[in-house]
Amino acid sequence: MAHLTDQERRDVLNRLARIEGQARGLRRMVEEDEYCVDILTQISAATTALDRVALKILDGHVHGCVREAMVSGGREAEAKTAELLEAVERFARMR
Amino acid sequence: MAHLTDQERRDVLNRLARIEGQARGLRRMVEEDEYCVDILTQISAATTALDRVALKILDGHVHGCVREAMVSGGREAEAKTAELLEAVERFARMR
Amino acid sequence: MAHLTDQERRDVLNRLARIEGQARGLRRMVEEDEYCVDILTQISAATTALDRVALKILDGHVHGCVREAMVSGGREAEAKTAELLEAVERFARMR
Amino acid sequence: MAHLTDQERRDVLNRLARIEGQARGLRRMVEEDEYCVDILTQISAATTALDRVALKILDGHVHGCVREAMVSGGREAEAKTAELLEAVERFARMR
Repeated sequence: MAHLTDQERRDVLNRLARIEGQARGLRRMVEEDEYCVDILTQISAATTALDRVALKILDGHVHGCVREAMVSGGREAEAKTAELLEAVERFARMR
Repeated sequence: MAHLTDQERRDVLNRLARIEGQARGLRRMVEEDEYCVDILTQISAATTALDRVALKILDGHVHGCVREAMVSGGREAEAKTAELLEAVERFARMR
Repeated sequence: MAHLTDQERRDVLNRLARIEGQARGLRRMVEEDEYCVDILTQISAATTALDRVALKILDGHVHGCVREAMVSGGREAEAKTAELLEAVERFARMR
Repeated sequence: MAHLTDQERRDVLNRLARIEGQARGLRRMVEEDEYCVDILTQISAATTALDRVALKILDGHVHGCVREAMVSGGREAEAKTAELLEAVERFARMR
């Protein structure tokens, strides 16, 4: 469960639709042989947009799943914490 | 000009089509309320894919535009070098 | 409080001593005018080492402070969660 | 050769001395069991400082070694370009 309010979910879906549009726009830029630095700028914009979505999802995850697991305690809390730290590690591109 | 060979261009276009599909897949994952960590993993995959495309474009740029400008020399060489370093800075998320 | 076991703390201190040595080594490399790509490689190593320390500290923080706050609940839990997400954002270089 | 002017070299050496001090400060913070989020903030500062130094070195490298190789042309140009792109890849944490 993504633990987002209705408005947060709508916001995330709008952002993802825009990212899909950015990827489509990038294809057109490459097809039309646009200037490489403009393409790189557009890729940066899409990457930043994806980072913002990841942070929103992470926020919902910590407020939702992780908190619930920590309040219940026990093995589930440990598993959720380990999983959260792995997600942060991936997010920080330490993969 | 993107300074890619026909095969490199096809490769970049295929990667971008896949990234567009990943963004669409992410929307569906959020709509269907899938597990947040799975969504984060999918976002990481899309970000890595965008990074790979950026590197391909950067590669073509350095081999093409930058080299040409450096060989010609003068002001154009300086301008291209400054632009390249800005692109690298953005790419390295130091924006 | 850093919420580290004695062994984790020793490990973190050893890593930081090594990073200090890497910074010192970098100064010598620049003074002796070593090859720029070798300097860049050494900077990458130090950055990766810092990322590893950050992850260790973050791990202790989530297992310690964040968990305690979440179990107690209330405003403190909210504050710790917000603070954690800000730390992750900085860590992921989204500053 | 680092291809830095005297002033750039002094600037880089000052930055590296400050980073060494930050690493030493971090050890003290961990020893004195300071608050984890403060430690994480300090790690971020050191990482950003290292990124800035890397960018300075990269700048000197592109203006110096890479340009010289490109102007001379031939195999050396190709080797320097490949090496530059690898350095950028590492710098962008795509390792």
